[in-house]
Amino acid sequence: MTDIATRVYNHTWKIDPIVRSVLDTDFYKLLMGQMIFRRHRDVQVAFGIHNRTSRVRLAEIIDDGALREQLDHVRSLSLSRGESTWLRGNMFYGKRQMFAPDYLAWLENFRFPAYHLEKRDGQYELIFEGPWIETTMWEVPALAVINELRSRAVLKGLGRFELQVLYARAMTRVWEKIEFLKSLGPVNLADFGTRRRHGFLWQDWCVQALSEGLGPTFLGTSNCLIAMRREVEATGTNAHELPMVYAALAQDDAALAAAPYEVLADWQQEYDGNLRIILPDTYGSTGFLAHAPDWVAGWTGIRIDSKDPLEGGEEAIAWWTARGQNPQEKLAIFSDGLDADEVARIHARFKGRMRLGFGWGTLLTNDFRGLASDGVLDPISIVCKVISANGRPAVKLSDNPTKAMGPPDQIARYRRVFEVGAQAERRVVV
Amino acid sequence: MTDIATRVYNHTWKIDPIVRSVLDTDFYKLLMGQMIFRRHRDVQVAFGIHNRTSRVRLAEIIDDGALREQLDHVRSLSLSRGESTWLRGNMFYGKRQMFAPDYLAWLENFRFPAYHLEKRDGQYELIFEGPWIETTMWEVPALAVINELRSRAVLKGLGRFELQVLYARAMTRVWEKIEFLKSLGPVNLADFGTRRRHGFLWQDWCVQALSEGLGPTFLGTSNCLIAMRREVEATGTNAHELPMVYAALAQDDAALAAAPYEVLADWQQEYDGNLRIILPDTYGSTGFLAHAPDWVAGWTGIRIDSKDPLEGGEEAIAWWTARGQNPQEKLAIFSDGLDADEVARIHARFKGRMRLGFGWGTLLTNDFRGLASDGVLDPISIVCKVISANGRPAVKLSDNPTKAMGPPDQIARYRRVFEVGAQAERRVVV
Repeated sequence: MTDIATRVYNHTWKIDPIVRSVLDTDFYKLLMGQMIFRRHRDVQVAFGIHNRTSRVRLAEIIDDGALREQLDHVRSLSLSRGESTWLRGNMFYGKRQMFAPDYLAWLENFRFPAYHLEKRDGQYELIFEGPWIETTMWEVPALAVINELRSRAVLKGLGRFELQVLYARAMTRVWEKIEFLKSLGPVNLADFGTRRRHGFLWQDWCVQALSEGLGPTFLGTSNCLIAMRREVEATGTNAHELPMVYAALAQDDAALAAAPYEVLADWQQEYDGNLRIILPDTYGSTGFLAHAPDWVAGWTGIRIDSKDPLEGGEEAIAWWTARGQNPQEKLAIFSDGLDADEVARIHARFKGRMRLGFGWGTLLTNDFRGLASDGVLDPISIVCKVISANGRPAVKLSDNPTKAMGPPDQIARYRRVFEVGAQAERRVVV
Repeated sequence: MTDIATRVYNHTWKIDPIVRSVLDTDFYKLLMGQMIFRRHRDVQVAFGIHNRTSRVRLAEIIDDGALREQLDHVRSLSLSRGESTWLRGNMFYGKRQMFAPDYLAWLENFRFPAYHLEKRDGQYELIFEGPWIETTMWEVPALAVINELRSRAVLKGLGRFELQVLYARAMTRVWEKIEFLKSLGPVNLADFGTRRRHGFLWQDWCVQALSEGLGPTFLGTSNCLIAMRREVEATGTNAHELPMVYAALAQDDAALAAAPYEVLADWQQEYDGNLRIILPDTYGSTGFLAHAPDWVAGWTGIRIDSKDPLEGGEEAIAWWTARGQNPQEKLAIFSDGLDADEVARIHARFKGRMRLGFGWGTLLTNDFRGLASDGVLDPISIVCKVISANGRPAVKLSDNPTKAMGPPDQIARYRRVFEVGAQAERRVVV
């Protein structure tokens, strides 16, 4: 029997919304949001979308009316009572009351701010300007909307069984990866794939498959909504936007050089334990570690996000050792374009030498490579990054010059201030 | 939203019935049934199940209570009004009123007769005794019930995602075969997989996938219920049980030698066109063709079912040519343990030399090989064959001695009467 009510409910929607909840975002947005709320409520930050896979001409694939409808729908969202209850009552990283009542009161009243959208050279220019605490919230839903609209545009032409087999193939692929990962022994792994996911339902499926397949070594998902609904851990710490904004606001070179450590000094006043994870690569990991104060070496771990992961891991071990720390008690989280084979390679190298965690993103939730002709469902490398803070340009260098962003003169200045030497280019797949 | 009514309806069933309709059977059963109804209503025929894959100990896998429940459920079925309407009104093989009103009136009143079930040496002995017109109807549902109960017994222990991925893998496999077949150019192919199917829903899926994937070169399904519901052609002609019963009833060796041709003489009074397909292998194809009267060569085609298909096809071409027929106007239907690669091999050899048709059975609807550990979902070679007619033993020789059945002395006699020489053994996979 068809449930007529469900059918009618579905076909009376004006659109089929992609993002249906304020919590359909990454957990680190809320952690960073709380710090921004307490310390930087007045900072104005512009974020912008950038599609690094420029051969995929998004503005020719995605209808701009449909994109506006989806973004407008996001703007209509607000935190529901149950969602607020979950944030107040749930335990995150082993701790209750992770979020203070004043921040949650702010979040309950939060509405996504206006966006600026236009087409340029076959791509979308999508910019969010306003208070940092508000614009930061756009990063994940904006990317999820664009990625899913692209999937939908491609899928529109497929037959019913073609669709079913497409998902059967994708499911088989994910499951084979999970079986492979299981064969490695305990691998601690979390879903980091919200922003680049093929679609919400697909990410939700992947999380459930990981949960059934990996059991206790599945650490959870960065997606708050899925974590809440599926009763798994919400995971994540912080991102490049913190040092990028702190750096942009620095009044001189000395302040600029100190900015990344200032982020950590602020962060450790907010959070402890497994949330104290260094993200060293914004302006070059090697320099960051060399100049870091000793208390940074006392943190729980490090995230290795743009350097060759084996090099980055060895560098971290050497650094901790030099600073009198025991690497075996430290946690290294790898999160750069991972796939199952890369997880295996890293795991084999560092097993027993550090505690390991893997944040598996795009190639978990959007590995449709080769499943549609001409690769039209292959994932793209699209980001939403800080452009400026209080009108001053923001810069990212990273360990991989392919990922650098900002005005060329500022990039040159940052390279000088942070003493960044020659860097190896690494191809960015996703 | 969950449709509560559907949920409640489902959980109030005493069992989940496998066969839910008299029409969930192969079309040839009805064609043969009509001939039996007109000509042999008083013949008593015993059918029995035989599992040629003896290493699979069915009686240890399938609960006998569950088997009885399913068989009893089949006994409760009767033709529905809509099903009767379809048989009366539908066009089969381009012809209306394929079935006469008196046969349909009989079918409307038909109920499946009693069965005899016991366990012996780890297998089920399942025997149907009574009027041929009734016992013949058990062949397909009995096999479908046993095969699906075996699948269910294996699947019981799987998790939700394991199940989903199992079917995702199986779907991917079927679809890849369909894509491969499409790449060969037009291949006329029908589903013959009812009896050995993994399950009813799975067969139904396979038929729909073939229909969407192959388009007009998909000839249809042998399954009447699926043909009716999915509005595709019902296909099939006749089976070994006809010559086996005619032969068993023969009073002497001369009558025995004539029996297979008597079947065809009767058949052509009932049916014409594409239903006039010789099935020559019951007592050896070579002898059958050598001794066949010339009118047999005038029939539309031949089914090649137990000989090496390339040999069998060449033999048919040579025979038609010798009898002054044009093989290019003839239809050869291949149906023995086919899989996509075998279809390709046969198609490559005979394309343009004969009209070709493929009856794809077990390896379409039950190719779960390797999808469960230890091959516990791999299909088995199980048949339901005539044991005796009016108390006289039935015999099958076939072109493959592995498939011969009957009492040894009778097999020897049949081999002598039908002048069967040395035969090549071919491994029976399914």
